[in-house]
Amino acid sequence: MQRLTLVEAEQLAQAILRRHGFSDAFVEAIAATLVAGERDGCASHGLWRLLGIVQTLRAGKVEPCAEPHVFDLAPGLVKVDAAGGFSQLAFAAGMPLLADKARANGIAALAINHCVHFSALWVELETLTELGLVALACNPTQAYVAPAGGSRPLFGTNPIAFGWPRAGQAPFIFDFATSAIARGEIELHRRSGEALPAGWGVDRQGQPCTDAAKVLDEGAMLTFGGHKGSALSAMIELIAGPLIGDLTSLESSAHDAGSKALPYHGELIIALDPQRFLGDQVEQHLARAEALFEAIQGQGARLPSQRRYAARERSLVQGVQLAQPLYDELMALLDE
Amino acid sequence: MQRLTLVEAEQLAQAILRRHGFSDAFVEAIAATLVAGERDGCASHGLWRLLGIVQTLRAGKVEPCAEPHVFDLAPGLVKVDAAGGFSQLAFAAGMPLLADKARANGIAALAINHCVHFSALWVELETLTELGLVALACNPTQAYVAPAGGSRPLFGTNPIAFGWPRAGQAPFIFDFATSAIARGEIELHRRSGEALPAGWGVDRQGQPCTDAAKVLDEGAMLTFGGHKGSALSAMIELIAGPLIGDLTSLESSAHDAGSKALPYHGELIIALDPQRFLGDQVEQHLARAEALFEAIQGQGARLPSQRRYAARERSLVQGVQLAQPLYDELMALLDE
Repeated sequence: MQRLTLVEAEQLAQAILRRHGFSDAFVEAIAATLVAGERDGCASHGLWRLLGIVQTLRAGKVEPCAEPHVFDLAPGLVKVDAAGGFSQLAFAAGMPLLADKARANGIAALAINHCVHFSALWVELETLTELGLVALACNPTQAYVAPAGGSRPLFGTNPIAFGWPRAGQAPFIFDFATSAIARGEIELHRRSGEALPAGWGVDRQGQPCTDAAKVLDEGAMLTFGGHKGSALSAMIELIAGPLIGDLTSLESSAHDAGSKALPYHGELIIALDPQRFLGDQVEQHLARAEALFEAIQGQGARLPSQRRYAARERSLVQGVQLAQPLYDELMALLDE
Repeated sequence: MQRLTLVEAEQLAQAILRRHGFSDAFVEAIAATLVAGERDGCASHGLWRLLGIVQTLRAGKVEPCAEPHVFDLAPGLVKVDAAGGFSQLAFAAGMPLLADKARANGIAALAINHCVHFSALWVELETLTELGLVALACNPTQAYVAPAGGSRPLFGTNPIAFGWPRAGQAPFIFDFATSAIARGEIELHRRSGEALPAGWGVDRQGQPCTDAAKVLDEGAMLTFGGHKGSALSAMIELIAGPLIGDLTSLESSAHDAGSKALPYHGELIIALDPQRFLGDQVEQHLARAEALFEAIQGQGARLPSQRRYAARERSLVQGVQLAQPLYDELMALLDE
């Protein structure tokens, strides 16, 4: 096990990215995302991702020095062409104009196109909640998930995230995949030979299936929440796919063509300004939101990001720990 | 069993509403909603609702002649004060400005405040998809549902609906409660003494509970989809509650004060214009959405509204059927 301070973790990530030819802007932006994930206890969005990032680069599936282009599409719409780069710079490039438009109009949307995507959405939403904005984000991924009643991969794991600003404390944020479970969890069951819990997948006939290999190789994953989760996943395909002129998960899989690179697709972010909705009553109504959060916690339930914020507090003091094999793999990336 | 043509059903609904003192505008708007529900096989949003409508009126919990006021809040925001009336007139009053703003800005929102609400959201979304707009709607209700990990009613059944226009055919629309099941279903289990399926409710300690009476009287209902559904339900409380300066489900229950009237709260509708996102590429990308729908149906899965549209086709030819006891109750309302 290797313990790193957050600064050390960031320097390591930056060194690896620089070594593999990412532009300075990407080196900084990607490293910041990875350290945020590691810091918040989201290992799957942490430094481990560097392995996939380098693999994607080697497969020729990401532009390491892409420069995003911002388009002012309409009074309420920003579009950023990520030009084949990772999503971070495109988001950073479009976010200020999104915030301006949300403040001017009350609501605005940012479409990110042609990006390679691995970022947790909460990282992006936090930059909007810090500005006092309410925000919603979603994206397709690659086709792994069958629609309810179906049998073949069509939808992605399609995450959806929502952020609500809270005065003087960390925002209310949720960020979850609309698949019943992460694909990696099913892979782990395949390796261990353990049966899958009900509701994770179907076989090639669309029947409930607890055999991880059959789900991954012949059948498909399922969404969370039955037909309701399936409907939400379809919505994400539509509004972060055709609506913004970008790929559906099935099209993203075709683009990948078996290279197992990080997925290439678009993303939609919607921002709303409570100030424009509520005017001089904004504080009074945001206080009512606080009462809702208190009522949730007062009955022993957790707010969605509570565990993540606890990990953050720990990491700020103690740094982060990387398993030795991962640390060794990362050091090897540095020498290659 | 009584069979009525759609015209007869509408005339019956109108006569009852008129008899109880609703303004002409409400008589027309409410009857249209009820007949749409009955026609589409959604009996719970059909003529049966007249019983609750009259009860709500008698409890003094709805204004039968309210006149909605439209406010142009911001370039992307419309607000309609329903002035204590049912939501239909408020939606009708605000919808044209919402559509104009969505077309001008690419995205816009309509907040409906101070309304009594029983309408299925798909009825509203269809008027937006008919204009070629993509739309999303949600509202709180009254506190029946515990947050994941909790034990006491806090969230409403909080429906969320989404609509996507389709050239030359009925739109892609879903509209579902974020509760695991409708409250009425649990009431039916209480009456029959049948055990509830897992996942519908908890007892007063927050433990899974299959006893309908305990869930309704001491514990709480649950959301669909575990902590993910619970997070979505919290989002709906926030964006269709404090964000628009209106009640949360818990506050709506307090307002009701045991009168069992139809719920009083707000509603948020967001509209997006594909034309502004996609410009002259709009047809090409909407065709890709059609390919997604074909891929869903091609593997034997249903689109969310398919059953509803099939019922609509039948009803347009055959009319609708009301159970005799309901028909008798409705006729009694006419004579009172």
